[in-house]
Amino acid sequence: MTIKKILLTLSSSALLALTTGGHALAYDLDTGNAAVEIVIPAAVPAIFEASPSGGDATLVLRTTTLITNGWFDAAAPYHPTATGVYSDLGRRPADESDDNTAINTALLHASYHVLSSLYPARNGEWRVMLQNAGLNPDDQSQDLTTAVGIGNQAGQAVVLARQNDGMNQLGNEGDQLYHQQAYADYTNFEPVNTAYTLTDPSKWQPAIVASGHGLFKVQQFVTPQLMLTEPYSYRSPKRFRSPVPRASNVENWGQYVAQANAVLEASANMTDEQKMYAELFDNKIFSLGFSAVFAAQSQGLSLMEFIQYDFLTNMAAYDTSIIIWQEKRRHNAVRPFSAIAHIYGDQPVTAWGGAYQGTVTDLPAKQWTSYLGVADHPEYPSASASFCAAHAETSRLFLGSDDLGYVVPTAAGSSRVEPGLTPAYDIVLEFDSWSDLEQKCGDSRVWSGVHFPASVPAGQRIGSKIAKRAYRFVQRKLSGH
Amino acid sequence: MTIKKILLTLSSSALLALTTGGHALAYDLDTGNAAVEIVIPAAVPAIFEASPSGGDATLVLRTTTLITNGWFDAAAPYHPTATGVYSDLGRRPADESDDNTAINTALLHASYHVLSSLYPARNGEWRVMLQNAGLNPDDQSQDLTTAVGIGNQAGQAVVLARQNDGMNQLGNEGDQLYHQQAYADYTNFEPVNTAYTLTDPSKWQPAIVASGHGLFKVQQFVTPQLMLTEPYSYRSPKRFRSPVPRASNVENWGQYVAQANAVLEASANMTDEQKMYAELFDNKIFSLGFSAVFAAQSQGLSLMEFIQYDFLTNMAAYDTSIIIWQEKRRHNAVRPFSAIAHIYGDQPVTAWGGAYQGTVTDLPAKQWTSYLGVADHPEYPSASASFCAAHAETSRLFLGSDDLGYVVPTAAGSSRVEPGLTPAYDIVLEFDSWSDLEQKCGDSRVWSGVHFPASVPAGQRIGSKIAKRAYRFVQRKLSGH
Repeated sequence: MTIKKILLTLSSSALLALTTGGHALAYDLDTGNAAVEIVIPAAVPAIFEASPSGGDATLVLRTTTLITNGWFDAAAPYHPTATGVYSDLGRRPADESDDNTAINTALLHASYHVLSSLYPARNGEWRVMLQNAGLNPDDQSQDLTTAVGIGNQAGQAVVLARQNDGMNQLGNEGDQLYHQQAYADYTNFEPVNTAYTLTDPSKWQPAIVASGHGLFKVQQFVTPQLMLTEPYSYRSPKRFRSPVPRASNVENWGQYVAQANAVLEASANMTDEQKMYAELFDNKIFSLGFSAVFAAQSQGLSLMEFIQYDFLTNMAAYDTSIIIWQEKRRHNAVRPFSAIAHIYGDQPVTAWGGAYQGTVTDLPAKQWTSYLGVADHPEYPSASASFCAAHAETSRLFLGSDDLGYVVPTAAGSSRVEPGLTPAYDIVLEFDSWSDLEQKCGDSRVWSGVHFPASVPAGQRIGSKIAKRAYRFVQRKLSGH
Repeated sequence: MTIKKILLTLSSSALLALTTGGHALAYDLDTGNAAVEIVIPAAVPAIFEASPSGGDATLVLRTTTLITNGWFDAAAPYHPTATGVYSDLGRRPADESDDNTAINTALLHASYHVLSSLYPARNGEWRVMLQNAGLNPDDQSQDLTTAVGIGNQAGQAVVLARQNDGMNQLGNEGDQLYHQQAYADYTNFEPVNTAYTLTDPSKWQPAIVASGHGLFKVQQFVTPQLMLTEPYSYRSPKRFRSPVPRASNVENWGQYVAQANAVLEASANMTDEQKMYAELFDNKIFSLGFSAVFAAQSQGLSLMEFIQYDFLTNMAAYDTSIIIWQEKRRHNAVRPFSAIAHIYGDQPVTAWGGAYQGTVTDLPAKQWTSYLGVADHPEYPSASASFCAAHAETSRLFLGSDDLGYVVPTAAGSSRVEPGLTPAYDIVLEFDSWSDLEQKCGDSRVWSGVHFPASVPAGQRIGSKIAKRAYRFVQRKLSGH
């Protein structure tokens, strides 16, 4: 199933639910997968409004992880042995999961609580989401002999555990009594460099980004407090470390220049395929999220299995992100755009010249820009590479195979960066295996100029390692420990 | 006519034009005012997309000034004596302006060229705009015996004169060969303070602003190059100066504290009316733009008179903005939020506590925030106060009276900052005279916490002075000099 087909399925089922309206007709809870068919389509607009490119990974991952955590905990009483992560709601008779009604009902109620906590201003949408499935958001039953009661308690427990988990979702960390802003930094991160002056060429420099027609703003490290957030599958991120990125230290001048040249060379030689892989992986929902939905559907996972798998992949990436953020903050490493400008200044370089310019040979180095917009955090290690590695490794472990067979047909001219021009012809992005997806994801961060090569394996190593822990964590919960 | 009625008129005429579709039926060019009924409704979405609050004044003013400049120059051949600002296209027989057809046709074609230059990505909309008036955007006639040719030449001349006027509309200033970004700063303005550390408590500190759910960015001085942009009504901004804002110099500690206390006191005592005046004046289209449309309609201005008046008011504010930006850059003065945090740190102050909090007595000073979001430029002088003064003074001069009678009914709960709560009851914002509008506008910048009191008269003085020059400039153009 392709992204287009998945989107079509998602939107047509959502549309069906909306147009059929009333409770009785609404949705087939018996046989459907309400996680995929109701909750994901409802949540996607909120995720994209919060993160228009789907690329602000820490906030996207928080949403997907907490939602799937709600599903997992709501489904646990219908599993022979499982307990939830944040609740232990007893065990229901096996015949209650002969069809999907009970699990769907429970996961929908749990999703309602989690989404209302994450996006309180959209509460009306979450109410409609339940109503479209024929459920009643005002039914706040706590009766653990019913799916409604189980879903409510499971969702409420996730909310309670996660609203004050260090991520500052409520804006109340750091003695902030007034003017509370969700996810504001309370750790007082301050960049070494300003957007205007590269005082220390080894360190991260916030980029100046266009925020509208003629308005510009300066980046701020997104959620530096993520490193203080509670992980699922290990106790503390402190024991996990990435090697020092020596080539990003300007005192190692030869390596510093060499890794900048590697990015320039990749920029000069970008193919249409590389551009489109890069755009795909910049959107974590379309790349990682939908590859999981594809794999689940092509392997015929049951609703219960899908829930386990989707929670596992998201939670593994979330736990990975905590360590990656710790390391990004610790190394605070320079991005390619700053290093290239520092090394070559106004000298001409050969590289991609910007949208619709192709490769040019007279580009003043200071005017070089990466194909993808650079994310608002220090360079090393690559977060995307780490998330793709965690996703691939958990998929291999859970599904028992590296085989994938995911294809993403990509129409001529469908690029977001160069619409109408790129790609020149219809192309098909193909992922034979999870390893293939993992490697193309990592490499695409260098092709697109946002990372140096060393960042990719550094991110991948952490993602793979945490994936194994996340898998064991889920196995423990499934066995009731 | 109220804002609601004006919006209703604008949108219903636009809707009429859209739904009647084809060329023949489209729009009554004979008797209509296509400037108000066709061009403004078409341009407003582009302005608001570029500047969601309508508050990024320099970019809004550039759009409105260049459009109305196009109207003025396109109408000049139909006036007994006028010449355009950037073209002198001869004189048409008086009977060609017996009705509005020729002037409407000319101003629409001129608007097409100006809007296509300012918002090239929206070219399709500008084509539809002409088609809705029964005109053909592909008619590029240069025949000065026709309204189409006059409009095309007038619009093209404005574009030619203004595309490289110092504002960097094309992104090509400062030897920028690649990665050209419209309106990017090419003057290398660098703030003295960072968003994190107030090194010099007398100087401007960029604010940290939420740019989405969990994402934050740091302000950058918007279009500092405006001070280098070519004015209409005077040769150079250098001879215009505002007095040094002594109270913003931290070495004058007593005054520094006193002016911060004045802002805190205003914050603590804000009424619902003051909040709604502040919100109205934060949106330059709804406050200044629509007050001009109201005045023109209530005084029964002809199409030709409306064009003169609307160009005058916008151009006066634009020319004012050049000086204000020069002075903002020169004084580079601290905003209230920084000074209040610097003086009182974590000590409790009494002030507005944020949305829905009312006035509180235990507000840690560092957590104080202004009712309106603070604009992304240094504090002194107040740009809004200067624009309102220019608008009021040009209106008095052109219309020959200070009388106004503009009322803005404001529904309970219609606040953007505190929706559902403020104002508690339906209220009517009233402007008996242009002087009344000018003063409420200026005062509202202190009530809402974005300016110190001294900024208001400093801005007003420059606005009033430039208004007189702008008026003389238009009079000269009308008399053919």
